[in-house]
Amino acid sequence: METKTLSKFIAELIGTFGLVLFSCGAAAIAGGDTLAQTSGLGLLGISLAFGLSVVVFAYAIGGVSGCHINPAVTLGVLVSGKMSGKDALVYITAQIIGGILGAFVLKTILTGQLAVFNPGEWAYGSNGWGAGYQNEYNMMTAFITETVLTALFLFVILGTTSKIGNGTMAGLAIGFTLVLIHLVAIPITGTSVNPARSLGPAIFAGGNAISQVWLFLLAPLVGAVIGAILWKLVYNEK
Amino acid sequence: METKTLSKFIAELIGTFGLVLFSCGAAAIAGGDTLAQTSGLGLLGISLAFGLSVVVFAYAIGGVSGCHINPAVTLGVLVSGKMSGKDALVYITAQIIGGILGAFVLKTILTGQLAVFNPGEWAYGSNGWGAGYQNEYNMMTAFITETVLTALFLFVILGTTSKIGNGTMAGLAIGFTLVLIHLVAIPITGTSVNPARSLGPAIFAGGNAISQVWLFLLAPLVGAVIGAILWKLVYNEK
Amino acid sequence: METKTLSKFIAELIGTFGLVLFSCGAAAIAGGDTLAQTSGLGLLGISLAFGLSVVVFAYAIGGVSGCHINPAVTLGVLVSGKMSGKDALVYITAQIIGGILGAFVLKTILTGQLAVFNPGEWAYGSNGWGAGYQNEYNMMTAFITETVLTALFLFVILGTTSKIGNGTMAGLAIGFTLVLIHLVAIPITGTSVNPARSLGPAIFAGGNAISQVWLFLLAPLVGAVIGAILWKLVYNEK
Amino acid sequence: METKTLSKFIAELIGTFGLVLFSCGAAAIAGGDTLAQTSGLGLLGISLAFGLSVVVFAYAIGGVSGCHINPAVTLGVLVSGKMSGKDALVYITAQIIGGILGAFVLKTILTGQLAVFNPGEWAYGSNGWGAGYQNEYNMMTAFITETVLTALFLFVILGTTSKIGNGTMAGLAIGFTLVLIHLVAIPITGTSVNPARSLGPAIFAGGNAISQVWLFLLAPLVGAVIGAILWKLVYNEK
Repeated sequence: METKTLSKFIAELIGTFGLVLFSCGAAAIAGGDTLAQTSGLGLLGISLAFGLSVVVFAYAIGGVSGCHINPAVTLGVLVSGKMSGKDALVYITAQIIGGILGAFVLKTILTGQLAVFNPGEWAYGSNGWGAGYQNEYNMMTAFITETVLTALFLFVILGTTSKIGNGTMAGLAIGFTLVLIHLVAIPITGTSVNPARSLGPAIFAGGNAISQVWLFLLAPLVGAVIGAILWKLVYNEK
Repeated sequence: METKTLSKFIAELIGTFGLVLFSCGAAAIAGGDTLAQTSGLGLLGISLAFGLSVVVFAYAIGGVSGCHINPAVTLGVLVSGKMSGKDALVYITAQIIGGILGAFVLKTILTGQLAVFNPGEWAYGSNGWGAGYQNEYNMMTAFITETVLTALFLFVILGTTSKIGNGTMAGLAIGFTLVLIHLVAIPITGTSVNPARSLGPAIFAGGNAISQVWLFLLAPLVGAVIGAILWKLVYNEK
Repeated sequence: METKTLSKFIAELIGTFGLVLFSCGAAAIAGGDTLAQTSGLGLLGISLAFGLSVVVFAYAIGGVSGCHINPAVTLGVLVSGKMSGKDALVYITAQIIGGILGAFVLKTILTGQLAVFNPGEWAYGSNGWGAGYQNEYNMMTAFITETVLTALFLFVILGTTSKIGNGTMAGLAIGFTLVLIHLVAIPITGTSVNPARSLGPAIFAGGNAISQVWLFLLAPLVGAVIGAILWKLVYNEK
Repeated sequence: METKTLSKFIAELIGTFGLVLFSCGAAAIAGGDTLAQTSGLGLLGISLAFGLSVVVFAYAIGGVSGCHINPAVTLGVLVSGKMSGKDALVYITAQIIGGILGAFVLKTILTGQLAVFNPGEWAYGSNGWGAGYQNEYNMMTAFITETVLTALFLFVILGTTSKIGNGTMAGLAIGFTLVLIHLVAIPITGTSVNPARSLGPAIFAGGNAISQVWLFLLAPLVGAVIGAILWKLVYNEK
């Protein structure tokens, strides 16, 4: 790997690591907690954790790798003809490793409680659906929701980073879109729209989380392609 | 329709679709939910959903159509002499279609719960007033509130996008204004200030939602004209 | 009044009107409400309402009047030698009128509920202290808190709008400072740091609100002078 | 001390004073409060208080001192070769004094309640771990958490303020990173990543707060060095 590619690899790895540690961490450590008389983060706090993670890494590593930290974003950018397939593979590899490392550190922290820690089903912020998961939506709805929301995500990403977008505000707008996606979909799937964010926690959670993870690898990728096509309908840079 | 007009049409349609799906979606899916020990979005989370939707589409499609995604905004811009009546009709048509499509997808998602789903009165984030709606304000107060708040909305929109505004921050300021409008008015009308956002959900909710929707088509348009006049008192670009 | 001064007068009036309607409105209408299973704004939502109001008007009328919408800010800017005493009088007059109008519209809306509306003591978002007010702090603490927080407010305002500040982000930073001030002080005084924001609601609330309003006219002005001096210690533009 | 160094000293002192008063103030005064029917700030409101404090001072004093207001940040910048050891000592001295003054004012305010005020263990927003502290995590987990999160903090700070960062948005991204760090770690340590923010409250709280403060002086400094090394792996300006 040449130096420039290595920089991108490390940047995407640390970014995805941070995304999973901050966001799944907020959900699993503080989301539903009540400490004495202090209320936990709730759905709003968890949604902000996911979105702001993208905002901060967009401005930290955007100049290095473009800050995808999400295989669906990398696919959407690839489909739009803005990166090579070889680079896309490097990015996705880094994202998957980063996501797994982030989930590993999160698991390590959670087992550091004095009381015996029972992670339960769908632990570490894992995604899922059906009986026992959040508000119990069926699989088809989970798939549609992840697909439609990833399409809107890519539409905003490609719009804000196009020539007619605002380079200064793009990172903020993209992160806020991820906030919105979570404001809608946590009761349905826990919200993925990002295969790397789903795979890491699922590996350590096991059980239903790992047997349902295929949907969160597939649906975001389908949505990303649709989003890239939608944006091309609106604006074509060539 | 020529290519440029078609681009604006699609952009306004997708933007309004996203606004309704994100915002009414957040309200109807996660607003009042409690999942295990996790609290729902509450009035603050719902307000942020509406405002941030405008922020993200402002930066995604602002360069294409100006991102009105609201017939009242289009009317205010028309009254200010900044767009043609023909373009205004194209915009409003796209917004109405986008709002209906957004509400349709939202309804589809909500019916995907394993438990039997009862949407209840004023479903899918519909606006309303009177007995049984939120904190039960009367019709006159609903009308005044929607008119005054839309006037302030247009005042900020025309100010931030004028020559003496800050182009980079305009989208953020306009979206935050919509947050503020929701922070005040959800207990009164559920907050519209946008006929397209009200019409879509009302069509699928039926009942009181559709019989009261006229106020949310009319009052925002009245307020928009007042807001355009107020801004002209402060600053005239000509 | 010449045209340019009149523009500033109207801008400051509408800005302060909007600040009071949005912020005191959020506090009085939605702050403590629970609608069915939806939680109200709480202290965080109310704090955001005050701060975001300053953000949005900063970008809407900043280019016209600088967007003080607060007599303490006008005094601090006057003390810093950046405006004339004559202009300061025009600004403060507009702010007081705008604050009273905002409180009047808020009162009108609140009386539009179907149930009999009992505004109670310290209505319409009024400031106060002592027995029966929020967490019951004494008068001396109320005075110290308002003074120290207004000093920090002016310090940030003068810093961010100085030659070494960032013109694009100043409005956001100033508004976020008002968020922070409210995150700390609502349980103590309801948070003023702005005589115009306190006077309007107090006039319509009467009782304790009006008899205690002197502190919220005086302490912010003292704090503003201290803040202007502190900033001069750090940086002197001349 | 020459004039320019004195300006930096005062700026860092006031910034750290403000950080502690706003953030620990929000936590101790309004974090867990419920006023009548209004809910307190909760973990989300407290997290925003810490992060927004950094945002506002970044834009107010960034042009004077770079706005470190945190000895760990100063160490990370020193290790990156971007400031002299002599300047670092001046900065850290100012930060420690500012943090102590902020905690002193906070204590003064809290004792101004009409009811007898019992600060309890770990008062004034102090950090800690183990039996009786928040969700009761062990010491090793507290150390790991503070180290990893400070490393990510420095990584973002050095990235956003590097030549390939965005100068306008750096302050916002850095502050949002502190929000994220608090969204994760309040149940574990109360979140420090800043020795000056921990020392001030611990001095006035005494007891467990002061006997455990060593970890919050040490772990953030270790994390800061790791973060500086991580960023150098991604990008080297020389």
